[in-house]
Amino acid sequence: MRIDLNSDLAEGFGRWELGDDSALLGVVTSANVACGFHAGDPGVIRRACAEAAARTVAVGAQVGYRDLAGFGRRFIDVPPRELTDEVLYQLAALDGIARVEGTAVTYVKPHGALYNAIVRDEAQAAAVVEAVRAYDPALAVLGLPGSTWLAQAADAGLRVFREAFADRAYTPEATLVSRREPGAVLHDPELIARRCLRIARGEPIDAVDGTEIAVSAESICVHGDSPGAVRIAETVRDRLRADGVELAPFAPDRSR
Amino acid sequence: MRIDLNSDLAEGFGRWELGDDSALLGVVTSANVACGFHAGDPGVIRRACAEAAARTVAVGAQVGYRDLAGFGRRFIDVPPRELTDEVLYQLAALDGIARVEGTAVTYVKPHGALYNAIVRDEAQAAAVVEAVRAYDPALAVLGLPGSTWLAQAADAGLRVFREAFADRAYTPEATLVSRREPGAVLHDPELIARRCLRIARGEPIDAVDGTEIAVSAESICVHGDSPGAVRIAETVRDRLRADGVELAPFAPDRSR
Amino acid sequence: MRIDLNSDLAEGFGRWELGDDSALLGVVTSANVACGFHAGDPGVIRRACAEAAARTVAVGAQVGYRDLAGFGRRFIDVPPRELTDEVLYQLAALDGIARVEGTAVTYVKPHGALYNAIVRDEAQAAAVVEAVRAYDPALAVLGLPGSTWLAQAADAGLRVFREAFADRAYTPEATLVSRREPGAVLHDPELIARRCLRIARGEPIDAVDGTEIAVSAESICVHGDSPGAVRIAETVRDRLRADGVELAPFAPDRSR
Amino acid sequence: MRIDLNSDLAEGFGRWELGDDSALLGVVTSANVACGFHAGDPGVIRRACAEAAARTVAVGAQVGYRDLAGFGRRFIDVPPRELTDEVLYQLAALDGIARVEGTAVTYVKPHGALYNAIVRDEAQAAAVVEAVRAYDPALAVLGLPGSTWLAQAADAGLRVFREAFADRAYTPEATLVSRREPGAVLHDPELIARRCLRIARGEPIDAVDGTEIAVSAESICVHGDSPGAVRIAETVRDRLRADGVELAPFAPDRSR
Repeated sequence: MRIDLNSDLAEGFGRWELGDDSALLGVVTSANVACGFHAGDPGVIRRACAEAAARTVAVGAQVGYRDLAGFGRRFIDVPPRELTDEVLYQLAALDGIARVEGTAVTYVKPHGALYNAIVRDEAQAAAVVEAVRAYDPALAVLGLPGSTWLAQAADAGLRVFREAFADRAYTPEATLVSRREPGAVLHDPELIARRCLRIARGEPIDAVDGTEIAVSAESICVHGDSPGAVRIAETVRDRLRADGVELAPFAPDRSR
Repeated sequence: MRIDLNSDLAEGFGRWELGDDSALLGVVTSANVACGFHAGDPGVIRRACAEAAARTVAVGAQVGYRDLAGFGRRFIDVPPRELTDEVLYQLAALDGIARVEGTAVTYVKPHGALYNAIVRDEAQAAAVVEAVRAYDPALAVLGLPGSTWLAQAADAGLRVFREAFADRAYTPEATLVSRREPGAVLHDPELIARRCLRIARGEPIDAVDGTEIAVSAESICVHGDSPGAVRIAETVRDRLRADGVELAPFAPDRSR
Repeated sequence: MRIDLNSDLAEGFGRWELGDDSALLGVVTSANVACGFHAGDPGVIRRACAEAAARTVAVGAQVGYRDLAGFGRRFIDVPPRELTDEVLYQLAALDGIARVEGTAVTYVKPHGALYNAIVRDEAQAAAVVEAVRAYDPALAVLGLPGSTWLAQAADAGLRVFREAFADRAYTPEATLVSRREPGAVLHDPELIARRCLRIARGEPIDAVDGTEIAVSAESICVHGDSPGAVRIAETVRDRLRADGVELAPFAPDRSR
Repeated sequence: MRIDLNSDLAEGFGRWELGDDSALLGVVTSANVACGFHAGDPGVIRRACAEAAARTVAVGAQVGYRDLAGFGRRFIDVPPRELTDEVLYQLAALDGIARVEGTAVTYVKPHGALYNAIVRDEAQAAAVVEAVRAYDPALAVLGLPGSTWLAQAADAGLRVFREAFADRAYTPEATLVSRREPGAVLHDPELIARRCLRIARGEPIDAVDGTEIAVSAESICVHGDSPGAVRIAETVRDRLRADGVELAPFAPDRSR
């Protein structure tokens, strides 16, 4: 049994810090490193890459809309061609920095509103896929099971990997319960850890209505933007390890 | 006899255009492509790289301060470590895009206020050199003869190349006459072309006071941000070719 | 008979120029001055205000999404509360600068994708209306006839004014023909001027299918981002004046 | 006896928070509100103004260089005319928002590298003074005693006020000990509070070498960007009040 834990990193900007990158890099096996468009200045990006390299945590490109003021959380109707170029720019910048630090980007996981948009938006999904394929067809992509993003990436010949969310409730149809609904976010570390263990083992978990659903995933997303979040991530990691689940990056190494 | 002609490109941003990249790419042998911090959005950068690749014009990284509002023309007292990371980010972004278009960055020529600062500012010069060296020690650098930038780059083992300015008057000490002085900028295409020919041949040119000075350079910088500027560049190119000077990039290819 | 001519101004940014503000300020009676979020640095804004004041051209706030890279032409799903605050900030900045130059903002006309969004988007329209009302209920608003923007502004007690587009074809339903359709944009200055005269006189104009439609408007929008556009604007102005139409701002003065 | 306590506020941006504005507004009598160029989005600015108005804390414009990435802490060689316009824009934006919340900007205190630059830089100091004077000559300015900023502001007819720093050591010449020196920053709340009391009473304080110096100030700057800093600010306030010092804004009200 084997699974990956991923989390967002390098989401500070200049004077502003966000989350505890060092703590998270002691927990996860894949780091979604911000690329400077929604968050992440070159310094915080480089430090995250250096520490990820030192801990053999895989580096993924957390590409986003160009929107520091909105932290990439506001949908932007970027024409697909522009979006391809904007993703390419971010991906190249991060990969170059990662290589200077002795590692390399191995996968792409879009951020925030872009992540949400390409669950269904065919044109924007195609634009991001095109950027990844053009940059390096050996790159993996990470995303929501059933998204057009993963479907199009697979069609383009990219390796696709699915993620589950450790602290989110699921509907009976195995989609995420909207954050606006009560009970959408789970807070009990032990409960969350048990769910993650079931996902890692390929066992069904409880949907929000109590029915059992299958959530297939090669990676589980944990958060790290609060002290409580880091503790949850640690609990998940410890529980998985204690029960014999190997934690390892899903994406093949590209750093040669 | 052989020399290079370089010019700034990709200096538009979004809706805003600047200069005529296509016209210039028909004239120069090296393109200083803006990297997004002082100018240059991912789309205009990519188009410049694609056209440079098609015309076998060398691509250089025109890195600058992060200052769209000031077009990179205002000195910023960036701490050296931050500057290294900011240059690295720009360099990586451009190189990745260039590679997607079948070429690669072969040299680095800083822009505007950064170019001017590192003529003398030891700490900022060292910061830029460190970024280039860290990214790829096989990269060349282009700059002002006598600058600490070129001296430090040479010390770091980088290949250094010197540039002359086609349309600028020189002092008797072979430095540029300040733009605030009368006669600092030349406008007569034929006169400019004759001076470039002398530089290419290694012959002395007239300083602003009439004395003869030697201006050694592997590349001559021409401008392209006005119709008149493009015509001057064309006149220079035609004159050099007509007199048997080979026009070719100074920097070795890195695109493999 | 009396009508207003409005046009977008101050849409440069730093090194980048766009349009010919001086030429336009010799033609129009209302200037939609960019406020710095989609275009317009403080210097170009101030110069536009100074020249508008000198020519007694009314100053309007051309507020937009915070998106320099997209020139405010990409829809952004800004939460309404944020949008209100962003519009308020832009409006206040422009009004303060206008007052320093002896004039004042008299109306608000949103720009680009925001203009288009609030034709139908109830929440964003309400957000912009709220910003205007909170800043000064004596401000006028300018927009598309039939838009929820104008309807909500009227409900909030603001003075609303309608605009027609000089160089755009209309559908039989008196809406604009999409720019993607052939014939959407008119180019013949004389034809355009004749249509504007009919609009000023309250006479019907030809829709794209030849049927006659009524286009009621207190202001006509002319463009100025190309030499041809300025000539069209001048032709419109001259024709209107020659036929006895008074050109004057629609919005009441607020500069005391 | 009477003195003012001032502190920096509204220095978050979008997703990024900095400091505890609510806690500080319970302590200080003057709030230096960021204006969006080095920090401060329209929402955080508006909330700070609303709470300042509710608590009758004076609102000052904390204008800065346009440098989100550097948090306004990097000197930028902005040409004076551009700087005037940039300061004017920030001042107008903040004042407009403050008025919507029932208060108004009463003073200007530049931020970070701009604050430091105009201690000695004549041209930049003049540029900021010109912006304040042009916007409203009734505005007060706050700064370092002996700075060219205060001298020029006084010459321009503005009301000038001096500030002391609660937690900083002073040289025997009554200038601040550089942060690079040991002992430059004080940490003991009781010691800091005692020094502030002496300043409020017009009594001398100890310089870093033990000699006594006079530090004349109408306002004392306290920090709030850490829990410890807020506690220090509270200790200062409590001590001053306990010893009969009235805490009140130095700048006259402009909100009518």
